[in-house]
Amino acid sequence: MPFTVPARPYDFVLDPRRTALVVIDMQRDFIEPGGFGDTLGNDVSRLTAIVPTVAGLIALFRANRLPVVHTREAHQPDLSDCPPAKRLRGKPGLRIGDTGAMGRILIAGEPGNQILPELAPVEGEIVIDKPGKGMFWATGLHERLQAIGIEQLAFAGVTTEVCVQTSMREANDRGYECLLIEDATESYFPEFKAAAIEMIVAQGAIVGWSTPLATLERAFAEAMVDG
Amino acid sequence: MPFTVPARPYDFVLDPRRTALVVIDMQRDFIEPGGFGDTLGNDVSRLTAIVPTVAGLIALFRANRLPVVHTREAHQPDLSDCPPAKRLRGKPGLRIGDTGAMGRILIAGEPGNQILPELAPVEGEIVIDKPGKGMFWATGLHERLQAIGIEQLAFAGVTTEVCVQTSMREANDRGYECLLIEDATESYFPEFKAAAIEMIVAQGAIVGWSTPLATLERAFAEAMVDG
Repeated sequence: MPFTVPARPYDFVLDPRRTALVVIDMQRDFIEPGGFGDTLGNDVSRLTAIVPTVAGLIALFRANRLPVVHTREAHQPDLSDCPPAKRLRGKPGLRIGDTGAMGRILIAGEPGNQILPELAPVEGEIVIDKPGKGMFWATGLHERLQAIGIEQLAFAGVTTEVCVQTSMREANDRGYECLLIEDATESYFPEFKAAAIEMIVAQGAIVGWSTPLATLERAFAEAMVDG
Repeated sequence: MPFTVPARPYDFVLDPRRTALVVIDMQRDFIEPGGFGDTLGNDVSRLTAIVPTVAGLIALFRANRLPVVHTREAHQPDLSDCPPAKRLRGKPGLRIGDTGAMGRILIAGEPGNQILPELAPVEGEIVIDKPGKGMFWATGLHERLQAIGIEQLAFAGVTTEVCVQTSMREANDRGYECLLIEDATESYFPEFKAAAIEMIVAQGAIVGWSTPLATLERAFAEAMVDG
């Protein structure tokens, strides 16, 4: 049965029969010291700090037998799915497909492109390799979610204002109700994380809702007692 | 021939043979006093203030015989293209399809859904009715732009952090190089406009570039003299 999750800008009514969790791009190259994100000069410790929260969120969905989707920003080894405009944006030597500390940068199958071991997908979960920041462009994910009756999405992952925000905006346009788990997402830039959340919940949830994991956990627990 | 436009975070090399202008949602209901945006309590004077700049930008593209695309956020009268989750987000009486001061809210063909007369499309320009915030979802625009060889897009319109940002992010994923004309876009919330631009140009133009109209005009003028 649907239940209420206290959230901003107002309560989110979650129907577990039609809700999935999406974990965006928790891949080694963005998060681990020595990876691509670190090489670019970003403070990855901000991102490693949310790993236990993301693990708790995944555990909550698994315990309730709800679908979990994992995404990775990944390109084919021949770069056929990487627009030249995207590759050329990078600095020489640090472009997509170049060899970095964890293998070829943002290339499917390379060590750096793997999801963190502590958040690894389990049998039966959906894993999406996406060539864009958004999870729907050129992935077929919308059709897969429709096929299993999903109409609501909880979001976690990195980074908040890039791949998470872009994916939420795509999802919102496609009619999904989106709930961001605000302590299970992070950015290299704290001011961008804060601004992205404000933009999402503004104007009566113009993109979606936001709440912390503990509030979602409490709402699930109360629903289980009642239900 | 391609020419250089000074921009943030670094120069944008504009190739006029493959560039189009996109003007997002300069529709009466978002901008005119008495329209839907005004009814919701927004300060529309911020948006009316950019109309001369947008008109100047359109004139620049027309004078150089480059394509201009106009979008409107619009739904079919039967709401068949409006997700229930989107319609129910609105306050009762102010929902999509309800009757407002300028006709049915966000419905194609209604007075409030028209582009401002001073920015009206002319014969031969592309006009897109879009059911989402992003201009690519369910519009066929990507195929139309590809058919005429467009690979770069200049962006103007409203509001910066909602429909403009969402459309730029979609365009970026599809391989377009995106240049925001920063004084030809506006938001009801100045802090969101500023944050959206910072997010766009961050990390080496992760979404795109930004420059004011006068800089673009000067670059066009110099290219015409040289070329």
